[in-house]
Amino acid sequence: AANRDEKSSGKKFASYTVFKGKAALSIHPILPSFSKLESGGSRIERNGSVMLTFFPAVGQRKYDYTKKQLFSLSPTEVGSLISLGPAESCEFFHDPSMKSSHEGQVKKSLSITPLGSDSGYFVNITVLNNVQKTTDRLSVPITKAEFSVMRTALSFALPHIMGWDQVLTHQPAAPANSKP
Amino acid sequence: AANRDEKSSGKKFASYTVFKGKAALSIHPILPSFSKLESGGSRIERNGSVMLTFFPAVGQRKYDYTKKQLFSLSPTEVGSLISLGPAESCEFFHDPSMKSSHEGQVKKSLSITPLGSDSGYFVNITVLNNVQKTTDRLSVPITKAEFSVMRTALSFALPHIMGWDQVLTHQPAAPANSKP
Amino acid sequence: AANRDEKSSGKKFASYTVFKGKAALSIHPILPSFSKLESGGSRIERNGSVMLTFFPAVGQRKYDYTKKQLFSLSPTEVGSLISLGPAESCEFFHDPSMKSSHEGQVKKSLSITPLGSDSGYFVNITVLNNVQKTTDRLSVPITKAEFSVMRTALSFALPHIMGWDQVLTHQPAAPANSKP
Amino acid sequence: AANRDEKSSGKKFASYTVFKGKAALSIHPILPSFSKLESGGSRIERNGSVMLTFFPAVGQRKYDYTKKQLFSLSPTEVGSLISLGPAESCEFFHDPSMKSSHEGQVKKSLSITPLGSDSGYFVNITVLNNVQKTTDRLSVPITKAEFSVMRTALSFALPHIMGWDQVLTHQPAAPANSKP
Repeated sequence: AANRDEKSSGKKFASYTVFKGKAALSIHPILPSFSKLESGGSRIERNGSVMLTFFPAVGQRKYDYTKKQLFSLSPTEVGSLISLGPAESCEFFHDPSMKSSHEGQVKKSLSITPLGSDSGYFVNITVLNNVQKTTDRLSVPITKAEFSVMRTALSFALPHIMGWDQVLTHQPAAPANSKP
Repeated sequence: AANRDEKSSGKKFASYTVFKGKAALSIHPILPSFSKLESGGSRIERNGSVMLTFFPAVGQRKYDYTKKQLFSLSPTEVGSLISLGPAESCEFFHDPSMKSSHEGQVKKSLSITPLGSDSGYFVNITVLNNVQKTTDRLSVPITKAEFSVMRTALSFALPHIMGWDQVLTHQPAAPANSKP
Repeated sequence: AANRDEKSSGKKFASYTVFKGKAALSIHPILPSFSKLESGGSRIERNGSVMLTFFPAVGQRKYDYTKKQLFSLSPTEVGSLISLGPAESCEFFHDPSMKSSHEGQVKKSLSITPLGSDSGYFVNITVLNNVQKTTDRLSVPITKAEFSVMRTALSFALPHIMGWDQVLTHQPAAPANSKP
Repeated sequence: AANRDEKSSGKKFASYTVFKGKAALSIHPILPSFSKLESGGSRIERNGSVMLTFFPAVGQRKYDYTKKQLFSLSPTEVGSLISLGPAESCEFFHDPSMKSSHEGQVKKSLSITPLGSDSGYFVNITVLNNVQKTTDRLSVPITKAEFSVMRTALSFALPHIMGWDQVLTHQPAAPANSKP
């Protein structure tokens, strides 16, 4: 029983990180959450996401993690990213305080633009803070091979952050009385 | 043991929904069912499916769920949808009462047609009721990013609604006597 | 405990079948087998496969299952099929008695040829029996949508019939003493 | 309980091997490792990889396994390989002793070059040993069908060697007291 408990409590973390001259970009998936229904089943409450974390470089192979900037991709934004053609670009705009009294104070945008000649993409984040009057920009060039890893990992992650793997996993019927 | 029971009884629900001006479209997968064989094994009895639910808009960001229209995609229809080229269209015709005495009373059709310039699709449902003399039409424009989510989620779902994931999952051999 | 036994003994079966005018074609995956190593681990002993079963039609929507012809696809043959371009064809030759004294008595070939205009494929099996002096031919036209189902299902099945899903599934470390 | 122990201790092995005139190439995936966090969760410690093993032929259908050469692909190198276009090539350079006092003594390179007319690739390994003053070269031609198997198996393996399948697998919440 000890083993099962460990497994249950054990949240796991893994990310894909690329370190470049001016900044690093790290990507990791976040699980959706389900809420219980009266029927005994459960329904997805909040979609999962894919979190992008940017860190500025502060020296050779040194990055300042305290200055990180986050951008969370929804399932549809993941769909946009994985269907991006070699010469196409996309851009997303987020307001972390949307629908609160702080709406409009911080504006984030993420753009992905081709490097040219089918050789990869630039991934750029801009964070405009209207209160602190600051603008942070971080940019990470991604090779074609690195984008292929992201595309494959995000395509794998997409049905999971939508909760479809949990819906589609066969749950064996409970025996009438499962007490051992 | 309580934990295992909960897991067993717990059917899970998750859908992908896009809300547009005139209607919303929600998609969720449905598991296949298996029937027991005398050998102790089991055989697929009914394929799963992917259910499309359309809701008409009745105001800004308000949808009338009581007027929903359903369309259930078979594995082959899912195959048609996920292989759709950017300029291609497809159409499916269903009779919910096929092979019953009510055959022909209600005719449903689903069509998916390109929006043009590789920018997405129109998903249209038409329900013709010959008894009530009514025709309902609902149409939802889908962006390229949203279609990419559907394509990826449906490609993931397809082997599951066919039951192949259950066939291909290794079941460890039962010990001679597994009584605890 | 009853539930676990049932699950363990319960082999599952599911196939994808298309019924056409002159014959039907059914496809189902077969698991690989592993053999125990002295270390306690196990190594793949025999690759799985994808079995194609052809049945001739003997009337409208009636098929004679006793006259079925089988063709088993290896992982590399599955790789050939799923990478087939719209205008490409492929052909495989099997001798069910290869390396036995009956070698050469029966020759099977499977060919997949395009129907033209990106509209699907013909799947043909020819079984030449040199002892009985018979040649059986069965041919099933496959639509683009049906081939999309096969391609998706076979791409899903491929890592499983190679045993890679079992290698890549994390097995939690056994506790020192797992006796309950 | 015996069954669970067996399953836990049981590491599994499976590879995809192609045997050609001058050499054979075998490919198998290697799991990532996780390390425990104080929180009870765990974080990926070392990425998994995909190991390529080359064996020279020493006669007809005979291969000398003692002269094998290994090349381990990182997630990004796997991404490069699975996104390779039909006329593209790629090359990777490894130093097995990088950052040790033996750095530069052995240099390995792996190149994948097209066979021409969309018919497959040459996979070549060169191992230059500056101490023993030896250069070993092994080259294996891969058909389009074999490369399709590799691409599909590596695309499947990629999220697993990155640990994303473990992050994205729902772990049911532990009951307050799971002692039976």
